[in-house]
Amino acid sequence: MIRYIIGWILILEAAFLSLPCIVAAIYQETDGWVYAAVLLVCLTCGLLLKRTKIQTKIFFAREGLVTVSLSWIVLSIFGSLPFIFTGAISNPVDALFETVSGFTTTGASILTDVEALSHCNLFWRSFTHWIGGMGVLVFMLALLPLTGGSHMNLLKAESPGPSVSKLAPKVQTTAKILYKIYIAMTLIQIVFLLIGKMPLFDALTTSFGSAGTGGFGIKNDSMASYSPYLQNVVTIFMILFGVNFNFYFLLLHKKFRQAFHFSEVRLYIGIILAATATIALSLGNIYDNFLEALHHSAFQVASIITTTGFATTDFNLWPEVSRTILVMLMFIGACAGSTGGGIKVSRFIILMKALVKELHQYIHPKGIKTIHIDGHTLGHEVLRSVNVFLFAYVLIFAASSLLLTFDGKDLITNFTAVAATLNNVGPGLELVGPSSNFSCFSMFSKLVLTFDMLAGRLEIFPLLLLFVRDTWKKF
Amino acid sequence: MIRYIIGWILILEAAFLSLPCIVAAIYQETDGWVYAAVLLVCLTCGLLLKRTKIQTKIFFAREGLVTVSLSWIVLSIFGSLPFIFTGAISNPVDALFETVSGFTTTGASILTDVEALSHCNLFWRSFTHWIGGMGVLVFMLALLPLTGGSHMNLLKAESPGPSVSKLAPKVQTTAKILYKIYIAMTLIQIVFLLIGKMPLFDALTTSFGSAGTGGFGIKNDSMASYSPYLQNVVTIFMILFGVNFNFYFLLLHKKFRQAFHFSEVRLYIGIILAATATIALSLGNIYDNFLEALHHSAFQVASIITTTGFATTDFNLWPEVSRTILVMLMFIGACAGSTGGGIKVSRFIILMKALVKELHQYIHPKGIKTIHIDGHTLGHEVLRSVNVFLFAYVLIFAASSLLLTFDGKDLITNFTAVAATLNNVGPGLELVGPSSNFSCFSMFSKLVLTFDMLAGRLEIFPLLLLFVRDTWKKF
Repeated sequence: MIRYIIGWILILEAAFLSLPCIVAAIYQETDGWVYAAVLLVCLTCGLLLKRTKIQTKIFFAREGLVTVSLSWIVLSIFGSLPFIFTGAISNPVDALFETVSGFTTTGASILTDVEALSHCNLFWRSFTHWIGGMGVLVFMLALLPLTGGSHMNLLKAESPGPSVSKLAPKVQTTAKILYKIYIAMTLIQIVFLLIGKMPLFDALTTSFGSAGTGGFGIKNDSMASYSPYLQNVVTIFMILFGVNFNFYFLLLHKKFRQAFHFSEVRLYIGIILAATATIALSLGNIYDNFLEALHHSAFQVASIITTTGFATTDFNLWPEVSRTILVMLMFIGACAGSTGGGIKVSRFIILMKALVKELHQYIHPKGIKTIHIDGHTLGHEVLRSVNVFLFAYVLIFAASSLLLTFDGKDLITNFTAVAATLNNVGPGLELVGPSSNFSCFSMFSKLVLTFDMLAGRLEIFPLLLLFVRDTWKKF
Repeated sequence: MIRYIIGWILILEAAFLSLPCIVAAIYQETDGWVYAAVLLVCLTCGLLLKRTKIQTKIFFAREGLVTVSLSWIVLSIFGSLPFIFTGAISNPVDALFETVSGFTTTGASILTDVEALSHCNLFWRSFTHWIGGMGVLVFMLALLPLTGGSHMNLLKAESPGPSVSKLAPKVQTTAKILYKIYIAMTLIQIVFLLIGKMPLFDALTTSFGSAGTGGFGIKNDSMASYSPYLQNVVTIFMILFGVNFNFYFLLLHKKFRQAFHFSEVRLYIGIILAATATIALSLGNIYDNFLEALHHSAFQVASIITTTGFATTDFNLWPEVSRTILVMLMFIGACAGSTGGGIKVSRFIILMKALVKELHQYIHPKGIKTIHIDGHTLGHEVLRSVNVFLFAYVLIFAASSLLLTFDGKDLITNFTAVAATLNNVGPGLELVGPSSNFSCFSMFSKLVLTFDMLAGRLEIFPLLLLFVRDTWKKF
């Protein structure tokens, strides 16, 4: 059954690979033949795997998690082949790092000169963000008919956030709605960028990067060379893609009251406003006037909290207050149910409420209080799962930071490199700041960071399960 | 009732203050008169407060926590008076910082020249570690007869660790046993230090510092100028004082089997051995031979994991691997039920087991698994409380780091300053490394760090409760 799904995933990837082929045809680049070849390999492998006889069509949580982990790994390995064979990134570990960075919407790069890449390579690099943003399995769910609870278990495992709300009674319908919103918003952004006189190719790749909250740029200076209008459009769309998609669903169904009382979205917007204002004030003497400081501050805050990772300026050179706030935003991350990464705003709401409840319990030992969020009672299961997530997160963070130290880099580089990959942000501070990249790390460290990117995107548990022996036992 | 307890606390503090008076008398220092005066003030205030009529002698969790918080604040304010009036530390905020650092067994100092202090000041500074190590309320419990569950609620609030095991049916007996072990071990350490030809005054203050896992030295270079024998004695006793005191209780009752299966103590020793070995290997080219590297590595690991904070060498200059490991040890901390700080080894055991359980639940969704530790089932309450603790800890950590950034110090200094105070360690890295001190911070930052030290020692909740409005309402 798992093989069957992975077969489908590869067929889908082959379909996606046809787009860079078209781009190559337009720009008459020979790299296109490599993409066509990889497409054929993907298609063949996919069809072979899909032919497996299916004994059971029922999916449990375990299979759901394992399938998602393996799909992402397979997807990344095949996705890195074009980079290797076009010679853009000849080292397989580097190519894997770059592809995983793309699919997990991290945007951390090992390339020192992005502008040297061919158009089809640049397109594929940015397009992986768009695929990874909403999740390739969610895409498949929208197309593929599966039985029973299988859909839900797959959706749960791939969707970011502590809990999945079904927007429609059928999971398949939910997946379709999500992708419709996603495609519509991407198209709107492309239109707005074209109005600002951005070339079509740039508009496409930039929109893919912000829609998936990825952050791969097609220029060496990321977004710095574009006009302030274009930067502002990107700022706004990054923030929009970091909002819980349920919010848009409520808007579409004209449930405005419910939408504007959505506590996660309110807190998310509140954090963005507070952080932007504080940083703008601290930038006083760096930019000419306050408006310019506000412009850069808003862009950077939006880029970091949504874990996109675009940059208009080198925030590594900003004062310590701003740097610290940006690092904290990396951890907070976007809303659950968006394309962004990080710990997610809703997890913080849940943890805050649990803390208040605990203090309350000390004062009224006999009182029983349940946690409510937006009118719903929070299940004991969800709270427990969020707590365990926090610890697993801290543990992976500590272990990765320790493993990176053997490279001999400074503490801040290591710390923010892990923060930037585990939260799927992209750039960190110091040696991995926005004006530099991850090429300075050893192969071993790159593999550790690749793991962190996958762990961040899949929210740890699916990936951890691969290392538990019981997972591989039969029932 | 709360006032009555605080009255007693002040009377006890007056009793403790008699010791530096005696020291002053021996060394014929005029500072002794200041101590005598403060002693009288303490005694008067204490007697006045104690005379309050007691309406009820019953104590709930809420009163227990509030009493402990207030006691520690009052204790610190009165304890700082001698420093102010002898002129040793003329600024009240600095004096409060130093005293809180003493009582919370942190050992972070704002003094640049410790050796300039008079003997009675040095003695009092180190003695606050000894008082704070086991807890002044625990001491009071051993002496004072109170009714009902009052004892237990006070003990719970002051003892470090996720849960308190009563060693004896009566809480008062438990408190007496704890202090007997504590005093006996301190005396043994003094004897061992005297054998190594350490002067009596040095032996006393060093023993107080290691017994309370505090870390105030009486030399500017901390422990660097003492002989290797003396340093090794301190290493061993630091480790011993970081062990859960239940372990000694089991040993005393000849329950050797139970004692040596104590999972927290085993993991604690395991971490120390692993960290010492790794650091020693990474120090290859800094010291003359491997034995010397091992010697310094063992001392520093013991000093940091038990959150004592003595230093034999400037570990700020060590390679990044060692520095990162030491920072991680700060967070792990010593065993619960010891005099050490940090998050505590037992909390990590609980969190690890919760993580394994969560993964297990994905594989066997219908299986029900409880968490066992040393043969006991872990209550749902304890697990919830540990989880909330972790989040409250992360929250205070982030907030403090952010507040410190306004001082304009570098990220590592801020980060490790908070780590060193919230975990009651003492020295951090860079500007707050072992060869420097906390005097570089602004008054505001010092108050933030003072709060962190108290929050760390009292394990956050008692102190947070002071800020909840409901706490001050009548039933």
